Amino acid sequence: MVGETTHFTLEESQIPSAWFNVVPSMPTPPSPPIHPGTKQPVGPDDLAPLFPMALIGQEVTTDEWVDIPGPVMDVYRMYRPTPLVRARRLEKQLGTPARIYYKYEGVSAAGSHKPNTAIAQAYYNQAEGVKRIATETGAGQWGSAMAMACAFFDLECQVYMVRASYDQKPGRRVMMQTWGARVLPSPSEETAAGQAILAEHPDSAGSLGIAISEAVEDTAKREDTKYCLGSVLNHVLLHQTIIGLEAKAQLAKADDTPDVVIGSVGGGSNFAGLAFPFVPDKTTGGKDIRFIAVEPTACPTLTEGAFEYDFEDTAETTPLLEMYTLEHRFIPPPIHAGGLRYHGDAPLLCRLVKDQVIEAVAYPQSKVFESAIQFARAEGIIPAPESAHAVRAAMDEALACKETGEDKAILFGLSGHGLLDLGAYESYLRGDLMDS
Amino acid sequence: MVGETTHFTLEESQIPSAWFNVVPSMPTPPSPPIHPGTKQPVGPDDLAPLFPMALIGQEVTTDEWVDIPGPVMDVYRMYRPTPLVRARRLEKQLGTPARIYYKYEGVSAAGSHKPNTAIAQAYYNQAEGVKRIATETGAGQWGSAMAMACAFFDLECQVYMVRASYDQKPGRRVMMQTWGARVLPSPSEETAAGQAILAEHPDSAGSLGIAISEAVEDTAKREDTKYCLGSVLNHVLLHQTIIGLEAKAQLAKADDTPDVVIGSVGGGSNFAGLAFPFVPDKTTGGKDIRFIAVEPTACPTLTEGAFEYDFEDTAETTPLLEMYTLEHRFIPPPIHAGGLRYHGDAPLLCRLVKDQVIEAVAYPQSKVFESAIQFARAEGIIPAPESAHAVRAAMDEALACKETGEDKAILFGLSGHGLLDLGAYESYLRGDLMDS
Repeated sequence: MVGETTHFTLEESQIPSAWFNVVPSMPTPPSPPIHPGTKQPVGPDDLAPLFPMALIGQEVTTDEWVDIPGPVMDVYRMYRPTPLVRARRLEKQLGTPARIYYKYEGVSAAGSHKPNTAIAQAYYNQAEGVKRIATETGAGQWGSAMAMACAFFDLECQVYMVRASYDQKPGRRVMMQTWGARVLPSPSEETAAGQAILAEHPDSAGSLGIAISEAVEDTAKREDTKYCLGSVLNHVLLHQTIIGLEAKAQLAKADDTPDVVIGSVGGGSNFAGLAFPFVPDKTTGGKDIRFIAVEPTACPTLTEGAFEYDFEDTAETTPLLEMYTLEHRFIPPPIHAGGLRYHGDAPLLCRLVKDQVIEAVAYPQSKVFESAIQFARAEGIIPAPESAHAVRAAMDEALACKETGEDKAILFGLSGHGLLDLGAYESYLRGDLMDS
Repeated sequence: MVGETTHFTLEESQIPSAWFNVVPSMPTPPSPPIHPGTKQPVGPDDLAPLFPMALIGQEVTTDEWVDIPGPVMDVYRMYRPTPLVRARRLEKQLGTPARIYYKYEGVSAAGSHKPNTAIAQAYYNQAEGVKRIATETGAGQWGSAMAMACAFFDLECQVYMVRASYDQKPGRRVMMQTWGARVLPSPSEETAAGQAILAEHPDSAGSLGIAISEAVEDTAKREDTKYCLGSVLNHVLLHQTIIGLEAKAQLAKADDTPDVVIGSVGGGSNFAGLAFPFVPDKTTGGKDIRFIAVEPTACPTLTEGAFEYDFEDTAETTPLLEMYTLEHRFIPPPIHAGGLRYHGDAPLLCRLVKDQVIEAVAYPQSKVFESAIQFARAEGIIPAPESAHAVRAAMDEALACKETGEDKAILFGLSGHGLLDLGAYESYLRGDLMDS
């Protein structure tokens, strides 16, 4: 079926020119967000203070394709198409008849898939006259992508970074500053939300919930500013589908199609970006693809959460979303895959899990790092701890094929490299890394 | 001349299948290495305890092309072809009529160009039955590449890492350990050379000279072990020519050829890898290409050194090479571009500088970081401090074109990203970074 090719490349002209919207392919349409005060569906006017109209439109569109604007394509071209690599050395080491492919987003300058949507969001904001972006970040993956995108579109960027990461993991903070962003440790003195926390807990280490509150407050009080979010929302997932669309074109060059598609899930945009373009092949095309969403056992949203309306944030200020959730006050233990520590997940993804189009599994981090190191020694790339969850699941699928003798095609998303997370590898190699 | 393309890709099948040897294109052939004891040219027997015969053969070959073995190609395919990108956003910001292209080697899993030769060296050693590699590293760029390559070819890897970096810059040490290498801080208790230093200076921070002595001693006393070096020698430069050969093929797709080729120089392998495949166009093809080797003013080997025979190491145990040198006991100040702190340079490069085929410039690190940040904000990628020297020179050439109105094609080598060097960026952004 495939020759000896390892690295499937595309010409720049083959980068997809439209994003894919999964909504028309869903067995059940997604439920609308609900206003926390009125309990009515949220309308464009409710969102207009936070987001530009173009993104609000993408949030509710039922069009299957959304054209990628030229200025966004111009920036995508700086690092896209990203590689699709057949993991031949790993296959050999596992002794599996399966074909393992990984789509690698770590070649972006920020080292992850996050720029795919950060660039689009920066563009639409600039196009509508916005001058300044406020956002939050935990360990810094999202904040760094947004900082870079703002540099490309001449936007000021204000990032509220959870203080624990600001102090202890300076790497991505310095990246943001290099790209010109202003980074404040959260809680900060610049917002009422931050001041209130600091008055009670002067040494607060912060949380993503607090940082969201600060960024939203910052946005609300300034005319020139809008807010950006790095996952969960429909328009974010839409922008990430560039990943799966490219992978599809690259697999076509291999004359192959996936039997299994695997990605790690924090808020859901990485998984959705890879998987959603393949969903119609299952829901309407008749190929029984398995979609596996991988999460940490420390934050088992899809595998153990309830499917219900819940808040996106701790402070109950955002619209309610219908999703799998561990409850918005849930605080997961401090695992190394900081990007997977979210109590809920993207509504589009959750609906597809609910309708059994997508399945979910959870792994403890010790198993995840064990596989990450095996992958690094076979394929070179040291995976981000988040991405390593997908590595583990792909290896388990490949080993299952060894048992059954099936020669499945397994596609997984390697959403980023771990070069800013080497402390986690050191901890694992020393034997200090615990499962919670 | 060129369309709107930004990202010039190649098919995997277009990866060059042979390395290019510059020797036949040189106006003056290189002088041989001299034995430190006999003062006679060094022969294969002198080198056999350290290197496998295949690499010794490559060290002295006058063939213009050397086939890349299949198992090396198999590994190259995991990250090659690397991108050639037209820096359109930077051109626009500079307002230059020049076309600026950069060849980016930071997409390798080690984040630099070093794997191109590490993989080849690991292969040839394994092919001749070697079981174990000993090498040294300063900040860890070379050690990490060698550790990864040893994982691919099932070789044990022992790295002597300068203690100052081992203690203060754990990132690349953890990378080496993740890939399975054993890393010791140098000076160590495992060699007589290390013990002698520690007896006198128990708190010694180490040096590259000491680490080389330890790795060579380790090799000499074990039958199963050979030694690997990351730059300077002819075979190392040969392996790196994959960079320039790919760039040439990519520029051909742009229907363009370079007027200026720029690279940073530590030992010379990065520069040579990009530039040497273009040398015949000048020496025999009649195109007056300018080749610019860029070094730090803190270690101005080519711009201020003497052209003479000198030792490669501090301890005077290695053969003497004819090269530009600041004298083998010279200790450069501790600049952030640790990979450019070498007293000499590759003999092939030095001979071409002596014969005025290649010119050299030097920049202080403050100017280099200034340009690195401008580049990061325009093009995304945060350059390694070493690579940023080439960025600075490319920008100066582009600005000169703005003055003269010339629409030159400028090609520079972006040898790696700076994600393991963010402390240097933090220092610059804080205003702490000094020129020595």
